Amino acid sequence: MSKFLSRQLESVSPYTPGEQPQDKGYIKLNTNESPYPPSPAVLQAIQSGEVENLRLYSDPEARRLKSAIAQVYQVAPEWVFVGNGSDEILNFAFQAYGKDDGVAFPDITYGFYQVFADFHAIQAQVIPLQENFSIDFQEYEGLGKMVCLANPNAPTGIALTPSQIERIVQTNLDHVVLIDEAYVDFGAESVVPLTQCDDSRLGVQTYSKSRSMAGARLGFAIGNPQLISDLMRIQFSTNPYNVNRLTLLAGEAAVLSGDYYQKMCQEIVKSRTWTALSLKNLGFSVTDSQANFVFARHDKLPGDKLYMELKKRGILVRHFPVPRISNYNRITIGTQKEMETLVAVLQEMIL
Amino acid sequence: MSKFLSRQLESVSPYTPGEQPQDKGYIKLNTNESPYPPSPAVLQAIQSGEVENLRLYSDPEARRLKSAIAQVYQVAPEWVFVGNGSDEILNFAFQAYGKDDGVAFPDITYGFYQVFADFHAIQAQVIPLQENFSIDFQEYEGLGKMVCLANPNAPTGIALTPSQIERIVQTNLDHVVLIDEAYVDFGAESVVPLTQCDDSRLGVQTYSKSRSMAGARLGFAIGNPQLISDLMRIQFSTNPYNVNRLTLLAGEAAVLSGDYYQKMCQEIVKSRTWTALSLKNLGFSVTDSQANFVFARHDKLPGDKLYMELKKRGILVRHFPVPRISNYNRITIGTQKEMETLVAVLQEMIL
Repeated sequence: MSKFLSRQLESVSPYTPGEQPQDKGYIKLNTNESPYPPSPAVLQAIQSGEVENLRLYSDPEARRLKSAIAQVYQVAPEWVFVGNGSDEILNFAFQAYGKDDGVAFPDITYGFYQVFADFHAIQAQVIPLQENFSIDFQEYEGLGKMVCLANPNAPTGIALTPSQIERIVQTNLDHVVLIDEAYVDFGAESVVPLTQCDDSRLGVQTYSKSRSMAGARLGFAIGNPQLISDLMRIQFSTNPYNVNRLTLLAGEAAVLSGDYYQKMCQEIVKSRTWTALSLKNLGFSVTDSQANFVFARHDKLPGDKLYMELKKRGILVRHFPVPRISNYNRITIGTQKEMETLVAVLQEMIL
Repeated sequence: MSKFLSRQLESVSPYTPGEQPQDKGYIKLNTNESPYPPSPAVLQAIQSGEVENLRLYSDPEARRLKSAIAQVYQVAPEWVFVGNGSDEILNFAFQAYGKDDGVAFPDITYGFYQVFADFHAIQAQVIPLQENFSIDFQEYEGLGKMVCLANPNAPTGIALTPSQIERIVQTNLDHVVLIDEAYVDFGAESVVPLTQCDDSRLGVQTYSKSRSMAGARLGFAIGNPQLISDLMRIQFSTNPYNVNRLTLLAGEAAVLSGDYYQKMCQEIVKSRTWTALSLKNLGFSVTDSQANFVFARHDKLPGDKLYMELKKRGILVRHFPVPRISNYNRITIGTQKEMETLVAVLQEMIL
């Protein structure tokens, strides 16, 4: 930190992303990336003459991409916002909707929500998950502030039902309810079809998980056009050309490759079921995850030790050294073969 | 705007980027893009297997790219920050260094500085350029706040000398002096070699102009490691994976293609000289631009009319409908052939 840094930013604790080791030796199950490549249409899109066109700015309105997303999600294009990863969109939404009255989110959830709140000096009401790690939706009724919920939640993978979310939205109509649907394609139900029922519900999704494009940096939000115009106001006040040309093109090809990605999601769900069962057979407690990861602990192995022992053996998982979940690890679902290796290694460690 | 938007953001006026028409019919001289494609090494870099790797997150530390930039600019890698375009870096720097004591910049300069200041509720001291559009460096001495200067300035193209910048830095050692060097490769002198002389001088550059990569979204800053760590603090508090994998790779290839880009810059400078002279011969007043554009007005043609008449004839230039410069147009230097077309069209309009 320099002596010039604004006092307000001195005390901010930045987010710590999962390890991104540059040596390629690991089975990488720590950042919820897809084990499968982007769709063939994406590979095709990038190999066109678009690299020569890099001399020209990207379309700051992302018209073609928004149209494609709108078509797939059956909304009009002005209901769509796109960002440089869904983190950018979450950051914008906290700025737009959290500042005046604050924001509420669970104690155990995507760790970035607290960072956004701190960074923007937003009052955060942190509501503990229930003992079984599920969200008590009744605690979010009529809060009088922005609500931000990941569905399925991370790192637990547990999903809310549509009627629970409906209850939260209907009792908070004077504030934005943001549903972070990063993992929704692996088993939960999206709020996107319901965004037309009111003007305060915002669904945020990402290309980083189910669409195998974490490295392309692309996320999108769907909601009432007035919400979208708020997000665009922030985009055009900070970084209008927020998504690059190649990612715009890849994003368009990907969202139109529905069949391919649906098949990949089915593979991942199949491996998740197998992995969860195998872990239980080894004595693990495993949450009911609807995401592309499982969240598990073992009575005989403290969470940090499990993480370190796996790392020694060439497998990276994600351990969060924070209260309530320090004995758990979040394990991304890789290929079936990777999961079999994981289970074999764990078996050896435990028996 | 929705009724949910934070009150602080209601009154912000976003930046208006230059037109990005989607019909390809124009000679596009309005957003200072390069008329030449990225270097062959960039084309090569993207056509590798990196598209398949898009499933994995990009390196949030951008280690390989920072090393390449560091090597070329003869600094250590920890002196380098990279962002999703230099706009992102400028936005971060205003947040980091403008909030406590305010910021000073000229009345006629990159219009985004005022937007950043408004957006972050930063007090801006706007200092008028001299009558001839040059910056009076003495007005920036000992201001007691952040200083932000584009060198060469936009849209005038006029550059400060190294000794003038030195004077500004030396009399403002208690605040960051940010030199926005978006156009520096076309003729001005960079502060980068001097960043090691003190801890408050920050040089910000972009790949969008001299490196023909506007559509890839990449900028970098060079300065004292403490300044770099401030910028990284904001990056990791808002969007850690701010640069995508393909752009990281392209950026590395581009910065190592020095010879290619030097030749392209020479071509542009040659065309700039020719264009400026041709415009003067047609009766235009033209500033002494060291950038990849000229800034010109004609007594017989109001600026808005010139802009509109050129657009009708298929040539886009940039007109700023703001005080002092509304009779000027900023004209990007395209290929020599494009500039010859422009001059022929203008000749027809004027004679």
